[in-house]
Amino acid sequence: MNPVLVEVLRGSLVESRHRGAVAVCDSSGTVAFSLGDVDARTYPRSAVKAIQALPLIESGAADRFGLDSNELALACSSHSGEPQHVATAAAMLAKAGRDVGTLECGVHWPLASSAARALAARGEAPSALHNNCSGKHAGFICLACSLGVDPLHYVQPDHVAQREVTAALAGVTGAALERETPAIDGCSIPTYPIALSALARGFARFGTGEGFGPERAKAARRLREAVAAHPFLVAGTGRFDTIVMEVLGARAFVKTGAEGVYCAALPEQGLGIAIKSEDGAGRAAEAVMANMLLRFLPMSAEERDKLAPQSSPRLRNWNGIEIGSIRVTPALGMSAHSSPA
Amino acid sequence: MNPVLVEVLRGSLVESRHRGAVAVCDSSGTVAFSLGDVDARTYPRSAVKAIQALPLIESGAADRFGLDSNELALACSSHSGEPQHVATAAAMLAKAGRDVGTLECGVHWPLASSAARALAARGEAPSALHNNCSGKHAGFICLACSLGVDPLHYVQPDHVAQREVTAALAGVTGAALERETPAIDGCSIPTYPIALSALARGFARFGTGEGFGPERAKAARRLREAVAAHPFLVAGTGRFDTIVMEVLGARAFVKTGAEGVYCAALPEQGLGIAIKSEDGAGRAAEAVMANMLLRFLPMSAEERDKLAPQSSPRLRNWNGIEIGSIRVTPALGMSAHSSPA
Repeated sequence: MNPVLVEVLRGSLVESRHRGAVAVCDSSGTVAFSLGDVDARTYPRSAVKAIQALPLIESGAADRFGLDSNELALACSSHSGEPQHVATAAAMLAKAGRDVGTLECGVHWPLASSAARALAARGEAPSALHNNCSGKHAGFICLACSLGVDPLHYVQPDHVAQREVTAALAGVTGAALERETPAIDGCSIPTYPIALSALARGFARFGTGEGFGPERAKAARRLREAVAAHPFLVAGTGRFDTIVMEVLGARAFVKTGAEGVYCAALPEQGLGIAIKSEDGAGRAAEAVMANMLLRFLPMSAEERDKLAPQSSPRLRNWNGIEIGSIRVTPALGMSAHSSPA
Repeated sequence: MNPVLVEVLRGSLVESRHRGAVAVCDSSGTVAFSLGDVDARTYPRSAVKAIQALPLIESGAADRFGLDSNELALACSSHSGEPQHVATAAAMLAKAGRDVGTLECGVHWPLASSAARALAARGEAPSALHNNCSGKHAGFICLACSLGVDPLHYVQPDHVAQREVTAALAGVTGAALERETPAIDGCSIPTYPIALSALARGFARFGTGEGFGPERAKAARRLREAVAAHPFLVAGTGRFDTIVMEVLGARAFVKTGAEGVYCAALPEQGLGIAIKSEDGAGRAAEAVMANMLLRFLPMSAEERDKLAPQSSPRLRNWNGIEIGSIRVTPALGMSAHSSPA
């Protein structure tokens, strides 16, 4: 039974509760912190995009097409569809001699409602470039083109590019994905169920290179540095990942996934973190992730002041009146405010 | 401990789970069905707007200002901010000699993203008329004006109009609201915690008039008939309340509230229903409400075919590929499909 990790208060009463599980591990799988059923398999969704981007570098595709750090950050992103995201995805495709027509992620209006309204105000409609996964998909297309294969149907599990991506995910997490039947993700690529404990260990490896060969360790470092240099590109205006990495830089790699998944790597601590909100709520996963960062990462008072509101946000209504708050429960063992700096 | 009521599947695996509570009662409080902690107090939020609209009729305000059935339906609504909603709210205010400047609900872009984009495409910004609560607030303003008091600060608990509204809510549900400290709702009016069992009994009364005086019974019937005649006005395009009442008409009054609350009245069965998704998820409350309607309301095969997808929706991704589904658990005792018609 997963414990209640997060409570949402209105006035002085708890209005809603979120259960979930958290695993914090080092690269050998030694558990530093664990709550709930961390051995249950769950779909990591977009939280593993950086791991899925490893073959883009390891294959030589990134160098062959001259991808810069902006483009590598976007390959790891679930972006908000703001103009810079869209332009960067288009630039990646152009470097491989392709365009939006090769994307197989589907079309949706930008995640950022302000970006969606701006698009509508210009009389435009969204394309697959606005899909929050377009950077990842542009990376898959670069990988396929670099491998000399037709990118057509690159979202299918048996496409050469997708097999490389799945092999990287299996290698990093140690999960026997070849024995799994994948489900289909929002952007149509396969998504495989993996235990939180394996995801946390995988991200400890991703953050340290421990357990990787030299090429994979170098590729992971390059992706971490790209995202740390461009935290806006991995998410967008006002988004949790962007806020956290603008504050912490390369000391934390943090990535959201749909249905309340969050993963992180803390390179200096040698730790990986994996969170799943049982009900799929992103607000709960964010509060827990902020709490874990405040717990495991030494921070200055200024950094702590910037991140504490992410762990216990104050809630305001349409008139700006404070009506409640979100807080992590004592099950997490330590409040953001009482922890030693 | 609230049981798991709803599961969200991706492929063949459960990806997310929603716990919650459900109460189904008659007007005397006799329980027809109950799951989870139905005696815990929760904020009913917008699910009680129709009860909050009773004084608008009982006071004579609706007749004094000549409000039609469209306007009465909007007074009970959490609307999507589509043009017809906005125009109807403006018309209500005009009948009381007021305009948008009297609204104290705050401003947000229309709930319907298509309506928000259409507004942006016209180069316009939202006003308080687009707030999903503008119909309820226009009703409060009509009430205040009809009572001969200045509507200024009508959202405050001690304003004459708000006291009438709270007294109606206390009277219908039997909850001792005068002993409660209210929290503040999204639109700035007070919201009082009430047990699901009391809400279910209150909606049984609202649906039947049982336990009401003749004036209140008449007012409740007039509101139910208004909403049944204009199900679009109480929610909007593609919304659950609108879909359900377009199929069932006056045989079911159904109303959503924020944070996973749902209430309903089934007049012919003499039952009221109140649901709270523990984590605040609307998708779970909708699936449970559809299941309850299928369980307690005799329906034709055609009606059943229209509502069954609301109880067990198929989930599709951006490419339209079916990736999973939502289903109610055996805790609810009966699937939508195996129930007798």
